[in-house]
Amino acid sequence: MAYTIEQVKALVREFVDFPSKGIVFRDIFPIFREPAAVECLVSHFVERIQATGQQIDVVVGLDARGFLLGPLIALRLGVSFAPVRKGGKLPGSVAQVTYEKEYGADVFEMEADSLTKGQRVVIVDDLLATGGSCGAAEELVRKLGGVVVLDAFIIRLAELNGDKRLEAPVYALIDC
Amino acid sequence: MAYTIEQVKALVREFVDFPSKGIVFRDIFPIFREPAAVECLVSHFVERIQATGQQIDVVVGLDARGFLLGPLIALRLGVSFAPVRKGGKLPGSVAQVTYEKEYGADVFEMEADSLTKGQRVVIVDDLLATGGSCGAAEELVRKLGGVVVLDAFIIRLAELNGDKRLEAPVYALIDC
Repeated sequence: MAYTIEQVKALVREFVDFPSKGIVFRDIFPIFREPAAVECLVSHFVERIQATGQQIDVVVGLDARGFLLGPLIALRLGVSFAPVRKGGKLPGSVAQVTYEKEYGADVFEMEADSLTKGQRVVIVDDLLATGGSCGAAEELVRKLGGVVVLDAFIIRLAELNGDKRLEAPVYALIDC
Repeated sequence: MAYTIEQVKALVREFVDFPSKGIVFRDIFPIFREPAAVECLVSHFVERIQATGQQIDVVVGLDARGFLLGPLIALRLGVSFAPVRKGGKLPGSVAQVTYEKEYGADVFEMEADSLTKGQRVVIVDDLLATGGSCGAAEELVRKLGGVVVLDAFIIRLAELNGDKRLEAPVYALIDC
């Protein structure tokens, strides 16, 4: 069976009060159970990225759920995939940013040679909430001399205004 | 440029004394910088899986680096992808195993409906070390009624004898 993008969107499930009271968790994994749905999702993102009309050199994915879709999109575009990980997980020379969270700070890193100056980047993650983690990823890309062309998400929690913390244009498949 | 599998293997970099003294860290991310290398790697794993001669229904990937390759292999095979995550990250009904580590224990989970009874599974991760985490993933698959046909890795640290903790046959692209 071939999926339409509306059918793919309908596979995302909501869990009320997970992981804690008052939070509605959106579960994207049912999409990955259906290869035809994954195919549709990847094609959809590739079309959206190509619709920017801009050259893309690197897809950057955030640990861990950005690793699910990032390499699929990168391979389809015929470009590099580069990870953003929490501090201490990547070896060698890294670029580092500290990302302030509600309680304390996190360190994000990219391998220093995962981008070259002037390369054009799409950042991919599953969820845009407050924009803190994607903002940190944008900053890492800039530190390495890259240019973020688009931030692409499966889901955006629109009322948290994450877009406002991001410099690049945002595309989200689903607005909640 | 098309890559041979030997050229893909040569992209893996070694970092001595990372993340701590005495450890040699193998960095697989340079493979992901080269779409032609990713293409070769995915094709190689798909061929190895098909060479088992067995039907495969689900590719299971371990958080986080198993998420890089798992969905690519699953899509190429035309089968489901299901994640194994640390405890507390997956919503709804989950299967759970406790995995004893050198210092303390970790909990691994799979969504209870991510497999159905009798489905045939390939587990994918980047690295086989002691086999603790893959053994826990095998146990989760069994709890959900699945059958592990193959455990597939990019790298195996042969002297740690991880194979001995695993029930299914093991394939590793690189033996160190």
